[in-house]
Amino acid sequence: MDRRKILLLIFDGLGDRPIPELARQTPLQTARKEHLDWFAANGVNGLMDPIAPGVKPGSDTSHLALFGYDSRAVYTGRGPFEAAGVGIPVRRGDIAFRGNLATVDSKMRVTDRRAGRIKDGTHDLAAALDGLQLDGGVRVLFRAGTEHRAALVLRGAGLSPHVTDSDPHEEGAVVASVAATESNGGATAHAVNAFTRECFRILKDHPVNMERAKAGLPPANMVLLRGAGIVPDLEPIGERFHLKAAGIAGVGLIKGMCRAVGMDVLEVAGATGGLDTDMVAKANAALEALKTYDLVAVNVKAPDVCGHDGLANEKVRTIERIDAMMATLKIGLGPEVVLAATADHSTPVMLKDHSADPVPVLIFGEGVRVDDVQKFDEISAAKGGLGRIRGLDLLPILLDLSGRSEKFGA
Amino acid sequence: MDRRKILLLIFDGLGDRPIPELARQTPLQTARKEHLDWFAANGVNGLMDPIAPGVKPGSDTSHLALFGYDSRAVYTGRGPFEAAGVGIPVRRGDIAFRGNLATVDSKMRVTDRRAGRIKDGTHDLAAALDGLQLDGGVRVLFRAGTEHRAALVLRGAGLSPHVTDSDPHEEGAVVASVAATESNGGATAHAVNAFTRECFRILKDHPVNMERAKAGLPPANMVLLRGAGIVPDLEPIGERFHLKAAGIAGVGLIKGMCRAVGMDVLEVAGATGGLDTDMVAKANAALEALKTYDLVAVNVKAPDVCGHDGLANEKVRTIERIDAMMATLKIGLGPEVVLAATADHSTPVMLKDHSADPVPVLIFGEGVRVDDVQKFDEISAAKGGLGRIRGLDLLPILLDLSGRSEKFGA
Repeated sequence: MDRRKILLLIFDGLGDRPIPELARQTPLQTARKEHLDWFAANGVNGLMDPIAPGVKPGSDTSHLALFGYDSRAVYTGRGPFEAAGVGIPVRRGDIAFRGNLATVDSKMRVTDRRAGRIKDGTHDLAAALDGLQLDGGVRVLFRAGTEHRAALVLRGAGLSPHVTDSDPHEEGAVVASVAATESNGGATAHAVNAFTRECFRILKDHPVNMERAKAGLPPANMVLLRGAGIVPDLEPIGERFHLKAAGIAGVGLIKGMCRAVGMDVLEVAGATGGLDTDMVAKANAALEALKTYDLVAVNVKAPDVCGHDGLANEKVRTIERIDAMMATLKIGLGPEVVLAATADHSTPVMLKDHSADPVPVLIFGEGVRVDDVQKFDEISAAKGGLGRIRGLDLLPILLDLSGRSEKFGA
Repeated sequence: MDRRKILLLIFDGLGDRPIPELARQTPLQTARKEHLDWFAANGVNGLMDPIAPGVKPGSDTSHLALFGYDSRAVYTGRGPFEAAGVGIPVRRGDIAFRGNLATVDSKMRVTDRRAGRIKDGTHDLAAALDGLQLDGGVRVLFRAGTEHRAALVLRGAGLSPHVTDSDPHEEGAVVASVAATESNGGATAHAVNAFTRECFRILKDHPVNMERAKAGLPPANMVLLRGAGIVPDLEPIGERFHLKAAGIAGVGLIKGMCRAVGMDVLEVAGATGGLDTDMVAKANAALEALKTYDLVAVNVKAPDVCGHDGLANEKVRTIERIDAMMATLKIGLGPEVVLAATADHSTPVMLKDHSADPVPVLIFGEGVRVDDVQKFDEISAAKGGLGRIRGLDLLPILLDLSGRSEKFGA
């Protein structure tokens, strides 16, 4: 069979536990979702531990696994993916920080950790810092995220992530002088402290802050940094699996995950990462992308949001909106596509947090060994033909079903 | 959700194979056990390979796995757990031996390897040896077990387990001079040989042996040692999983397993480790312990005894007595407890030995994804919502269900 295409649908936080409010059913068991169930009934189903049984995954470690990377071997923290998410083209060895635009007085005392939750002008402020060259040949890459949030990447020889935060984590305290936490952290600490000085020098009289002063708003004249992490050495997914891959996601962290593994990130109008996201637009964008890409990964964040907020009925409705997305795919998918639908982890409504409960997974496409599972939910999937697999197993299975696996042995 | 408690019930050797005498059913399939089945019907079920598929576990390696330790990485032999089981407070790096109180003549020839299966006075004899200081700063810790059985621990710098046995393993032979089997065994061999000399010197005229001579019984004037093993470096379970743990067991080896991982061992009147054990007393002790401990592990040895003895009907009756224990738990358990019931391995009646057959496992408690399994047995469990897991997966799953897991990633 010729090589086919892979569509990987990741419904964030979709898995759940029985909920008293839903008569001890899960949201997936409760929702009306004829199209999702159609894919289950015409596919092969199973349960999947995103990392391993009993391990409660983050979205980042789980997406790494679903993209074919052993997160227990390569994960170095969330910072590098956040940086990639705001558009910094991170490279192996870069040191990434999460940051806040903040307000300090002339004595470097923090008077507002979020600079009055600044919204406008953040990209102009960021542009004034991006590209700075610091002592020791260290290059600054800096981007604003949503509101006061930002990401900093330091690039240069001899840098390490083993440094303290410049963010004092409380107002009234002065911006912290950064120190090494291990012997190889000296150059990074020196660079971060130089960045802090440059920040104030460049931002204090920046036109955006002049305007803010006129409007009686606190200036965004400092960047407070936290959570240093080194960008891991991830072989680009295209090279690793000999394919052309694209990601579609609304939220920054997941866009960052996609970029960090070398996927093209496709922007979809209306894909917000929130409950109001346009899922059908994502489905159409995925169908369009499958014309030119071999692997298209789509993240839908909404079920996770419902889980974290403890909203059982909203999670049910979100699944019903996902079903409309599946209707679009059912019509639009050609026989050249192998589809997988799953979650990156469970976010049980009763917990308002992630859990280690395995998630349902279905695979649909020509050649799949269709089992007798009729519905896509946590209980039905346990009887499916896939059995209980791990997140790291999924992409290899899809590569094989799509005629893209390599023989081990002769 | 708040942190909850964990009750881990380990029915030793419970798993079995179809038995012709039972119309080709297993003892679990044959037994009347409405309460055990109630837990299965209201819980989630599966099969568990204590170590891995096809690996025939010992009780020690399996309990290690169920307690969350990778026995293939940390197991060094049974000796350290036997020593802990008779009450020696073993420490990492100690060298433990299993021993027999025995009778030798003046030429050190073994005339009775079990000193006439001595029962009385063994603890007095042991006390005379416990605390000895040997050449080279080696300290002796010595305790009697049941009948002629005993355990020796050597504690000191530079000791290794790589030595031969002093037990010649046959009567008529002289007590063996212990030699190193690897280059680092010299100090240990020297210490064991010194212990052997001290043994005879101290025990030959001990009042217990004077009494035995008067009664025409062979003196227990020697300790024959075998199976040297080093106490592994096991991070205490309390630190490892941030909880307070207790174990309830009738037999010494399992008490030793519990102690070796840092559990408190609770003594229960009537818990013998034999077929006559008072299982309801164990259930009540567990319920009481759950008021102050986060994790309570209970071992019931009786099914394993039936398996080793090849007694099919006795194993059925033992399961029916286990069911009375489950009735007690069903009434007494509060919603703050997550319960797991399983076995450490199968001990098929037809084999009279352990086998690698996976064992049934059920998990019951708030939040569990109840499946449609109605009975607790080896065949029904295979269709459950847990699928097929490993022993090392179980505690992480229980920690997550009880709100005690930590997130991997963000």
